[in-house]
Amino acid sequence: MKKHNFNAGPSILPREVIEDTAKAILDFNGSGLSLMEISHRAKDFQPVVDEAVALFKELLNIPEGYSVLFLGGGASMEFCMVPYNFLEKKAAYLNTGVWAKKAMKEAKAFGEVVEVASSAEATYTYIPKDYTVPADADYFHITTNNTIYGTELKEDLNSPVPMVADMSSDIFSRPIDVSKYICIYGGAQKNLAPAGVTFVIVKNDALGKVSRYIPSMLNYQTHVDNGSMFNTPPVVPIYAALQTLRWIKAQGGVKEMERRATEKANMLYAEIDRNKMFVGTAVKEDRSRMNICFVMAPEYKDLEADFMKFATERGMVGIKGHRSVGGFRASCYNALPKESVQALIDCMQEFEKLH
Amino acid sequence: MKKHNFNAGPSILPREVIEDTAKAILDFNGSGLSLMEISHRAKDFQPVVDEAVALFKELLNIPEGYSVLFLGGGASMEFCMVPYNFLEKKAAYLNTGVWAKKAMKEAKAFGEVVEVASSAEATYTYIPKDYTVPADADYFHITTNNTIYGTELKEDLNSPVPMVADMSSDIFSRPIDVSKYICIYGGAQKNLAPAGVTFVIVKNDALGKVSRYIPSMLNYQTHVDNGSMFNTPPVVPIYAALQTLRWIKAQGGVKEMERRATEKANMLYAEIDRNKMFVGTAVKEDRSRMNICFVMAPEYKDLEADFMKFATERGMVGIKGHRSVGGFRASCYNALPKESVQALIDCMQEFEKLH
Repeated sequence: MKKHNFNAGPSILPREVIEDTAKAILDFNGSGLSLMEISHRAKDFQPVVDEAVALFKELLNIPEGYSVLFLGGGASMEFCMVPYNFLEKKAAYLNTGVWAKKAMKEAKAFGEVVEVASSAEATYTYIPKDYTVPADADYFHITTNNTIYGTELKEDLNSPVPMVADMSSDIFSRPIDVSKYICIYGGAQKNLAPAGVTFVIVKNDALGKVSRYIPSMLNYQTHVDNGSMFNTPPVVPIYAALQTLRWIKAQGGVKEMERRATEKANMLYAEIDRNKMFVGTAVKEDRSRMNICFVMAPEYKDLEADFMKFATERGMVGIKGHRSVGGFRASCYNALPKESVQALIDCMQEFEKLH
Repeated sequence: MKKHNFNAGPSILPREVIEDTAKAILDFNGSGLSLMEISHRAKDFQPVVDEAVALFKELLNIPEGYSVLFLGGGASMEFCMVPYNFLEKKAAYLNTGVWAKKAMKEAKAFGEVVEVASSAEATYTYIPKDYTVPADADYFHITTNNTIYGTELKEDLNSPVPMVADMSSDIFSRPIDVSKYICIYGGAQKNLAPAGVTFVIVKNDALGKVSRYIPSMLNYQTHVDNGSMFNTPPVVPIYAALQTLRWIKAQGGVKEMERRATEKANMLYAEIDRNKMFVGTAVKEDRSRMNICFVMAPEYKDLEADFMKFATERGMVGIKGHRSVGGFRASCYNALPKESVQALIDCMQEFEKLH
């Protein structure tokens, strides 16, 4: 049976990326060696990193003066590296969910943290809009997409101070004005690669401004100076990331990714709004195109487990909502084909007919 | 042409591990999904982590009261995590090479660092033996194998204080008395897995003793409490590590790995000592079984490039010595077959006949 992969992350990758990576694991570049056993200093591997960096810059239209890094550790490590590198006195954070809150928690060890606004009181079902960012903050931190609650900042904000963004789950799904940010980071395991690599886009001249000592591995400057090769980087995930970047380019770039994301999200939200059995959980204007969250309508609450079984039997994978929201979550990352969204819609319609 | 992979790291892995991983990347466990796109919270993946932890404990005979962690970031991140977690006032370090020195450098930001001994004056060609570890140190840090210089501590030392060891490049090549250590760590990309995962064996009751605040991701306790799942772990490298652990067990465990390592090293060192054209660089008693370093004898110095070409043409890969030592380095990790060592010896003998 054909599986439709709605996993929230690690999540679906283009089939070409999966097949190319499997092939390289058997034989990298006709070298007679596996991608898993080549040196990261091999002359065949440096071009992989170089091309991945170049495609990052090209696809996201990154201005001069920024570096692109591939690190280990995950976005959670960035929650601590960001304040380590940028927080001298005060930082502003927008609290849009558990991940934003975790980022804030780590920052508090390094300086004053101002929570400019929070939607915690409404289980993060919306993105706060009415707030002031202190003009003396070192940076303003946002989480552009909130996987658990299905909310998304679909446009770059304006801020009186440079922004830092966790874009783990919506990078490459729309054009970004990178010049508004001193740092954009994310775990790669949504739109880019398997788990195990973290991307960081960092503005070079924003570094070196804090007075504290920064351990080498936690200092972005170390990785900028060494082209992500200060220590052994995660070779296989970086190789897979390059394949995805090539795929994005071949498909038409981030504008095309945005068009597809919008199309898929519109299809599924239209069904959620039409179907009497389901209700979306996020406020409409803040609905995420990446993670689409919905629950059973109150009068059908008892059928939640039934629908889960019904959909699972039809090949839907990973649609269980996060425990803090309940219900369902259909993650529709770049690699998810429209056909999978249609298959889920068909399930919802068939299920409605049965009841 | 058959390649003989002497890479220092990332390095050779058992062919079964490579093939199993490539297969799982195409289809994990018959799930219809790739290993690269399954959730780390999937019920199929938890057993992978659980079995990897269990095999670590079984193969290394780890006593009760220790946790095994799989983290991102590499051993270089541990250079900073070790003092973050264990250094309250003073730590002792044995300086046996560049990696030991890097570990010391990071520790200095957290407290007093005592270099108990160093072989820097002799380009680290031996392991110092005559030194005293301060009895009031929080721990004594050693690097059991020094990849660049080809020296190795082949037995567990005695120390008046608990030890911490970087075993990146010789883990699973001999039995260890884990009870002597509060922490053993390493990048996995030598004897265990592709680059992208770091193993940490940590004594639970040694944690929580420093007074400083530790950022969540840098706190071993976080990862102990969450079974390496505080954030998304590097799924593919962990899967590959499990396959290697199974392979080690099937081959007969670490005692058999030690027997093979000794046999291979003895073969190659015997040839180095016999062949008039080559000279070993490390002092005999400290010679590493994992990384075998040698240079041209002084009277044949001009033939270094020639031998490199000669060996490369016969399928030898990764035998160039580190730039700080020069000459050649044959890394003979667990997965390297005896046949590859013999092939290198054949090269050395043929080359000798030609001159």
